[in-house]
Amino acid sequence: MPSQFDQVLKERRSVRKFKPDEVSSHDLRELAALGVWAPSAGNAQTWSFVIVRDSSKLEAIHAVSPGMLAPPPAVIAVCQDEKRAQEVGGRLGVERCSVMDSAMAAQNIMLAAHARDLATCPVLSFHPPAVGQILNLPESVVPHLLIEVGYAETTPAAPRRVLEGVIQFERYE
Amino acid sequence: MPSQFDQVLKERRSVRKFKPDEVSSHDLRELAALGVWAPSAGNAQTWSFVIVRDSSKLEAIHAVSPGMLAPPPAVIAVCQDEKRAQEVGGRLGVERCSVMDSAMAAQNIMLAAHARDLATCPVLSFHPPAVGQILNLPESVVPHLLIEVGYAETTPAAPRRVLEGVIQFERYE
Repeated sequence: MPSQFDQVLKERRSVRKFKPDEVSSHDLRELAALGVWAPSAGNAQTWSFVIVRDSSKLEAIHAVSPGMLAPPPAVIAVCQDEKRAQEVGGRLGVERCSVMDSAMAAQNIMLAAHARDLATCPVLSFHPPAVGQILNLPESVVPHLLIEVGYAETTPAAPRRVLEGVIQFERYE
Repeated sequence: MPSQFDQVLKERRSVRKFKPDEVSSHDLRELAALGVWAPSAGNAQTWSFVIVRDSSKLEAIHAVSPGMLAPPPAVIAVCQDEKRAQEVGGRLGVERCSVMDSAMAAQNIMLAAHARDLATCPVLSFHPPAVGQILNLPESVVPHLLIEVGYAETTPAAPRRVLEGVIQFERYE
Protein backbone atom coordinates (compact mmCIF):
# COMPACT_ATOMS: atom_id res chain seq x y z
CA MET A 1 0.00 0.00 0.00
CA PRO A 2 2.66 2.65 0.83
CA SER A 3 4.28 2.43 -2.59
CA GLN A 4 0.97 2.77 -4.48
CA PHE A 5 -0.06 5.57 -2.15
CA ASP A 6 3.30 7.31 -2.48
CA GLN A 7 2.93 7.17 -6.25
CA VAL A 8 -0.13 9.45 -6.11
CA LEU A 9 1.81 11.94 -3.97
CA LYS A 10 4.76 11.87 -6.37
CA GLU A 11 2.81 12.05 -9.62
CA ARG A 12 0.34 14.84 -8.80
CA ARG A 13 1.23 17.93 -10.82
CA SER A 14 -0.19 21.44 -10.96
CA VAL A 15 -2.04 21.46 -14.29
CA ARG A 16 -3.08 24.73 -15.92
CA LYS A 17 -4.40 23.51 -19.27
CA PHE A 18 -7.56 21.43 -19.25
CA LYS A 19 -9.65 19.55 -21.80
CA PRO A 20 -13.10 21.10 -22.31
CA ASP A 21 -14.76 18.08 -20.64
CA GLU A 22 -17.01 18.86 -17.69
CA VAL A 23 -16.31 17.53 -14.21
CA SER A 24 -19.35 15.95 -12.56
CA SER A 25 -20.97 17.49 -9.48
CA HIS A 26 -20.70 14.05 -7.92
CA ASP A 27 -16.91 13.95 -8.29
CA LEU A 28 -16.48 17.53 -7.09
CA ARG A 29 -18.62 16.88 -4.05
CA GLU A 30 -16.57 13.77 -3.24
CA LEU A 31 -13.36 15.79 -3.44
CA ALA A 32 -14.65 18.55 -1.16
CA ALA A 33 -15.92 15.91 1.28
CA LEU A 34 -12.36 14.53 1.49
CA GLY A 35 -10.98 18.00 2.24
CA VAL A 36 -12.98 17.83 5.44
CA TRP A 37 -10.78 14.96 6.67
CA ALA A 38 -7.64 17.11 6.79
CA PRO A 39 -6.69 18.22 10.29
CA SER A 40 -7.61 21.67 11.58
CA ALA A 41 -6.08 23.50 14.53
CA GLY A 42 -8.11 22.61 17.61
CA ASN A 43 -10.43 20.71 15.25
CA ALA A 44 -12.06 24.11 14.61
CA GLN A 45 -13.16 23.24 11.04
CA THR A 46 -13.76 26.85 10.10
CA TRP A 47 -13.47 26.09 6.37
CA SER A 48 -16.15 25.80 3.75
CA PHE A 49 -15.92 24.68 0.13
CA VAL A 50 -17.81 26.35 -2.70
CA ILE A 51 -17.97 24.29 -5.89
CA VAL A 52 -18.36 26.25 -9.13
CA ARG A 53 -19.29 24.68 -12.51
CA ASP A 54 -21.35 27.50 -13.99
CA SER A 55 -19.43 28.89 -16.96
CA SER A 56 -20.37 32.54 -16.44
CA LYS A 57 -19.24 32.34 -12.82
CA LEU A 58 -15.99 30.63 -13.90
CA GLU A 59 -15.37 33.42 -16.39
CA ALA A 60 -16.02 36.03 -13.72
CA ILE A 61 -13.59 34.29 -11.36
CA HIS A 62 -10.97 34.05 -14.09
CA ALA A 63 -11.32 37.80 -14.75
CA VAL A 64 -10.24 38.60 -11.17
CA SER A 65 -7.61 35.85 -10.84
CA PRO A 66 -4.25 36.69 -12.44
CA GLY A 67 -3.03 33.26 -11.32
CA MET A 68 -5.51 31.51 -13.64
CA LEU A 69 -4.57 31.06 -17.32
CA ALA A 70 -8.14 30.50 -18.53
CA PRO A 71 -11.53 29.67 -17.00
CA PRO A 72 -11.18 26.02 -15.92
CA PRO A 73 -13.98 23.42 -16.12
CA ALA A 74 -14.57 23.76 -12.38
CA VAL A 75 -13.30 25.50 -9.27
CA ILE A 76 -13.41 24.49 -5.63
CA ALA A 77 -12.99 27.64 -3.53
CA VAL A 78 -11.55 26.86 -0.10
CA CYS A 79 -12.94 29.51 2.22
CA GLN A 80 -12.52 30.35 5.90
CA ASP A 81 -14.91 31.88 8.34
CA GLU A 82 -12.33 34.31 9.69
CA LYS A 83 -14.65 35.61 12.40
CA ARG A 84 -15.00 32.09 13.82
CA ALA A 85 -11.28 31.40 13.35
CA GLN A 86 -10.53 34.55 15.35
CA GLU A 87 -12.97 33.55 18.10
CA VAL A 88 -11.47 30.06 18.33
CA GLY A 89 -7.77 30.85 18.02
CA GLY A 90 -7.26 34.60 18.33
CA ARG A 91 -4.84 36.37 16.04
CA LEU A 92 -2.65 33.28 15.54
CA GLY A 93 -5.82 31.32 14.76
CA VAL A 94 -6.90 33.56 11.94
CA GLU A 95 -3.51 34.58 10.52
CA ARG A 96 -1.67 31.29 10.75
CA CYS A 97 -3.79 28.29 11.77
CA SER A 98 -6.70 28.93 9.41
CA VAL A 99 -4.29 29.45 6.49
CA MET A 100 -2.61 26.10 7.21
CA ASP A 101 -6.00 24.43 7.65
CA SER A 102 -7.06 25.68 4.20
CA ALA A 103 -3.86 24.43 2.61
CA MET A 104 -4.07 20.97 4.20
CA ALA A 105 -7.69 20.56 3.10
CA ALA A 106 -6.67 21.71 -0.40
CA GLN A 107 -3.87 19.15 -0.50
CA ASN A 108 -6.34 16.36 0.34
CA ILE A 109 -8.59 17.56 -2.48
CA MET A 110 -5.76 17.76 -5.02
CA LEU A 111 -4.39 14.32 -4.14
CA ALA A 112 -7.83 12.69 -4.20
CA ALA A 113 -8.43 14.33 -7.59
CA HIS A 114 -5.19 12.89 -8.96
CA ALA A 115 -6.15 9.43 -7.66
CA ARG A 116 -9.28 9.80 -9.87
CA ASP A 117 -7.33 10.96 -12.95
CA LEU A 118 -8.57 14.49 -12.43
CA ALA A 119 -6.08 17.34 -12.54
CA THR A 120 -5.88 20.42 -10.34
CA CYS A 121 -4.00 23.63 -9.80
CA PRO A 122 -3.95 25.68 -6.60
CA VAL A 123 -4.35 29.40 -7.27
CA LEU A 124 -3.38 31.99 -4.68
CA SER A 125 -3.20 34.98 -6.98
CA PHE A 126 -6.80 36.30 -7.10
CA HIS A 127 -8.78 39.20 -5.71
CA PRO A 128 -10.51 37.88 -2.56
CA PRO A 129 -13.25 40.55 -2.25
CA ALA A 130 -14.22 40.13 -5.92
CA VAL A 131 -14.33 36.33 -5.61
CA GLY A 132 -16.32 36.74 -2.39
CA GLN A 133 -18.89 38.78 -4.26
CA ILE A 134 -19.13 36.28 -7.13
CA LEU A 135 -19.68 33.45 -4.63
CA ASN A 136 -22.07 35.42 -2.44
CA LEU A 137 -19.80 34.96 0.57
CA PRO A 138 -20.85 36.69 3.79
CA GLU A 139 -18.44 39.35 5.03
CA SER A 140 -16.79 37.05 7.59
CA VAL A 141 -16.07 34.28 5.04
CA VAL A 142 -12.93 34.77 2.97
CA PRO A 143 -11.67 32.68 0.03
CA HIS A 144 -8.14 31.47 0.85
CA LEU A 145 -7.40 29.35 -2.17
CA LEU A 146 -9.00 28.49 -5.49
CA ILE A 147 -8.49 24.98 -6.82
CA GLU A 148 -8.94 24.63 -10.57
CA VAL A 149 -10.28 21.15 -11.44
CA GLY A 150 -10.51 19.43 -14.82
CA TYR A 151 -9.04 16.74 -17.05
CA ALA A 152 -5.44 17.52 -18.01
CA GLU A 153 -4.73 18.72 -21.53
CA THR A 154 -1.00 18.95 -20.83
CA THR A 155 0.85 17.92 -17.71
CA PRO A 156 3.95 19.99 -17.06
CA ALA A 157 7.20 18.71 -15.62
CA ALA A 158 7.85 19.67 -12.04
CA PRO A 159 11.53 19.53 -11.19
CA ARG A 160 12.32 19.27 -7.50
CA ARG A 161 15.42 20.38 -5.61
CA VAL A 162 17.99 17.70 -4.85
CA LEU A 163 17.27 16.37 -1.39
CA GLU A 164 20.70 17.12 0.01
CA GLY A 165 20.24 20.24 2.08
CA VAL A 166 16.44 19.98 1.91
CA ILE A 167 16.37 17.07 4.38
CA GLN A 168 18.60 17.34 7.41
CA PHE A 169 19.15 15.18 10.46
CA GLU A 170 19.21 16.53 14.01
CA ARG A 171 20.56 19.94 13.05
CA TYR A 172 20.63 22.29 10.09
CA GLU A 173 24.06 22.38 8.45
CA MET B 1 -7.62 2.89 -6.34
CA PRO B 2 -9.65 5.99 -5.34
CA SER B 3 -11.50 4.15 -2.58
CA GLN B 4 -8.30 2.70 -1.07
CA PHE B 5 -6.61 6.06 -1.42
CA ASP B 6 -9.58 7.91 0.07
CA GLN B 7 -9.48 5.55 3.02
CA VAL B 8 -6.04 6.84 4.03
CA LEU B 9 -7.31 10.43 3.85
CA LYS B 10 -10.36 9.58 5.96
CA GLU B 11 -8.62 7.45 8.57
CA ARG B 12 -5.62 9.64 9.36
CA ARG B 13 -5.98 11.12 12.84
CA SER B 14 -3.92 13.54 14.89
CA VAL B 15 -2.32 11.29 17.49
CA ARG B 16 -0.76 12.74 20.65
CA LYS B 17 0.08 9.58 22.60
CA PHE B 18 2.76 7.32 21.18
CA LYS B 19 4.28 3.94 22.04
CA PRO B 20 7.92 4.20 23.14
CA ASP B 21 9.06 2.44 19.91
CA GLU B 22 11.61 4.31 17.84
CA VAL B 23 10.87 5.42 14.27
CA SER B 24 13.65 4.51 11.83
CA SER B 25 15.74 7.18 10.11
CA HIS B 26 14.90 5.42 6.86
CA ASP B 27 11.14 5.87 7.34
CA LEU B 28 11.49 9.48 8.46
CA ARG B 29 13.65 10.31 5.47
CA GLU B 30 11.09 8.71 3.14
CA LEU B 31 8.32 10.82 4.67
CA ALA B 32 10.27 14.07 4.32
CA ALA B 33 11.14 13.13 0.74
CA LEU B 34 7.40 12.85 0.00
CA GLY B 35 6.77 16.30 1.47
CA VAL B 36 8.91 17.64 -1.36
CA TRP B 37 6.27 16.50 -3.88
CA ALA B 38 3.62 18.87 -2.54
CA PRO B 39 3.13 21.97 -4.69
CA SER B 40 4.80 25.26 -3.81
CA ALA B 41 3.82 28.70 -5.07
CA GLY B 42 5.86 29.37 -8.22
CA ASN B 43 7.60 26.05 -7.53
CA ALA B 44 9.80 28.07 -5.15
CA GLN B 45 10.49 25.10 -2.82
CA THR B 46 11.72 27.30 0.00
CA TRP B 47 11.06 24.62 2.61
CA SER B 48 13.46 22.35 4.41
CA PHE B 49 12.79 19.43 6.73
CA VAL B 50 14.79 18.75 9.87
CA ILE B 51 14.36 15.25 11.28
CA VAL B 52 14.92 14.85 15.02
CA ARG B 53 15.30 11.49 16.80
CA ASP B 54 17.79 12.47 19.51
CA SER B 55 15.99 12.23 22.86
CA SER B 56 17.66 15.23 24.47
CA LYS B 57 16.72 17.38 21.48
CA LEU B 58 13.16 16.04 21.59
CA GLU B 59 12.95 16.94 25.28
CA ALA B 60 14.26 20.42 24.54
CA ILE B 61 11.67 20.88 21.77
CA HIS B 62 8.90 19.63 24.04
CA ALA B 63 9.93 22.15 26.70
CA VAL B 64 9.27 25.08 24.33
CA SER B 65 6.17 23.59 22.64
CA PRO B 66 2.95 24.00 24.63
CA GLY B 67 1.15 22.16 21.80
CA MET B 68 3.09 18.95 22.55
CA LEU B 69 1.84 16.65 25.34
CA ALA B 70 5.16 14.81 25.78
CA PRO B 71 8.41 14.37 23.84
CA PRO B 72 7.42 12.17 20.87
CA PRO B 73 9.64 9.43 19.37
CA ALA B 74 10.52 11.75 16.48
CA VAL B 75 9.82 15.17 15.04
CA ILE B 76 9.96 16.44 11.48
CA ALA B 77 10.28 20.23 11.61
CA VAL B 78 8.94 21.87 8.44
CA CYS B 79 10.97 25.05 8.00
CA GLN B 80 10.93 27.90 5.52
CA ASP B 81 13.74 30.07 4.25
CA GLU B 82 11.77 33.28 4.72
CA LYS B 83 14.47 35.42 3.13
CA ARG B 84 14.21 33.40 -0.09
CA ALA B 85 10.40 33.29 0.13
CA GLN B 86 10.41 37.10 0.35
CA GLU B 87 12.78 37.38 -2.62
CA VAL B 88 10.64 35.05 -4.73
CA GLY B 89 7.14 36.22 -3.78
CA GLY B 90 7.39 39.49 -1.85
CA ARG B 91 5.22 40.04 1.22
CA LEU B 92 2.45 37.72 -0.03
CA GLY B 93 5.12 35.11 -0.73
CA VAL B 94 6.45 35.02 2.79
CA GLU B 95 3.23 35.69 4.75
CA ARG B 96 0.80 33.58 2.79
CA CYS B 97 2.36 31.36 0.09
CA SER B 98 5.18 29.94 2.18
CA VAL B 99 2.74 29.14 5.02
CA MET B 100 0.49 27.24 2.62
CA ASP B 101 3.50 25.49 1.09
CA SER B 102 4.58 24.28 4.54
CA ALA B 103 1.09 23.02 5.32
CA MET B 104 0.72 21.14 2.02
CA ALA B 105 4.12 19.47 2.47
CA ALA B 106 3.13 18.58 6.03
CA GLN B 107 -0.12 17.03 4.82
CA ASN B 108 1.81 14.82 2.36
CA ILE B 109 4.06 13.71 5.22
CA MET B 110 1.17 12.97 7.59
CA LEU B 111 -0.78 11.02 4.96
CA ALA B 112 2.26 9.01 3.87
CA ALA B 113 2.94 8.23 7.53
CA HIS B 114 -0.59 6.92 8.02
CA ALA B 115 -0.23 4.75 4.91
CA ARG B 116 2.76 3.16 6.73
CA ASP B 117 0.88 2.69 10.04
CA LEU B 118 2.83 5.54 11.57
CA ALA B 119 0.94 8.23 13.44
CA THR B 120 1.50 11.98 13.44
CA CYS B 121 0.31 15.21 14.97
CA PRO B 122 0.86 18.69 13.53
CA VAL B 123 1.94 21.18 16.21
CA LEU B 124 1.65 24.92 15.65
CA SER B 125 1.93 26.01 19.26
CA PHE B 126 5.69 26.26 19.88
CA HIS B 127 8.30 28.96 20.31
CA PRO B 128 9.93 29.41 16.88
CA PRO B 129 13.15 31.16 17.99
CA ALA B 130 13.80 28.53 20.66
CA VAL B 131 13.18 25.67 18.22
CA GLY B 132 15.39 27.47 15.70
CA GLN B 133 18.21 27.50 18.24
CA ILE B 134 17.77 23.81 19.13
CA LEU B 135 17.90 22.90 15.41
CA ASN B 136 20.78 25.25 14.61
CA LEU B 137 18.64 27.08 12.04
CA PRO B 138 20.22 30.09 10.35
CA GLU B 139 18.43 33.39 11.03
CA SER B 140 16.53 33.36 7.73
CA VAL B 141 15.14 29.84 8.25
CA VAL B 142 12.03 29.65 10.44
CA PRO B 143 10.21 26.55 11.69
CA HIS B 144 6.55 26.76 10.56
CA LEU B 145 5.22 23.48 11.82
CA LEU B 146 6.41 20.57 13.96
CA ILE B 147 5.16 17.12 13.04
CA GLU B 148 5.27 14.58 15.86
CA VAL B 149 5.87 11.07 14.49
CA GLY B 150 5.54 7.70 16.23
CA TYR B 151 3.45 4.58 16.59
CA ALA B 152 0.01 5.34 18.04
CA GLU B 153 -0.67 4.41 21.65
CA THR B 154 -4.24 5.72 21.46
CA THR B 155 -6.06 7.07 18.43
CA PRO B 156 -8.65 9.69 19.30
CA ALA B 157 -12.01 10.15 17.60
CA ALA B 158 -12.21 13.11 15.26
CA PRO B 159 -15.80 14.20 14.71
CA ARG B 160 -16.40 16.27 11.60
CA ARG B 161 -19.09 18.83 10.90
CA VAL B 162 -22.10 17.67 8.89
CA LEU B 163 -21.42 18.46 5.26
CA GLU B 164 -24.54 20.54 4.77
CA GLY B 165 -23.36 24.12 4.83
CA VAL B 166 -19.69 23.06 4.61
CA ILE B 167 -20.03 22.15 0.91
CA GLN B 168 -21.97 24.57 -1.26
CA PHE B 169 -22.72 24.70 -4.97
CA GLU B 170 -22.30 27.84 -7.08
CA ARG B 171 -23.02 30.26 -4.24
CA TYR B 172 -22.82 30.44 -0.48
CA GLU B 173 -26.26 30.26 1.15
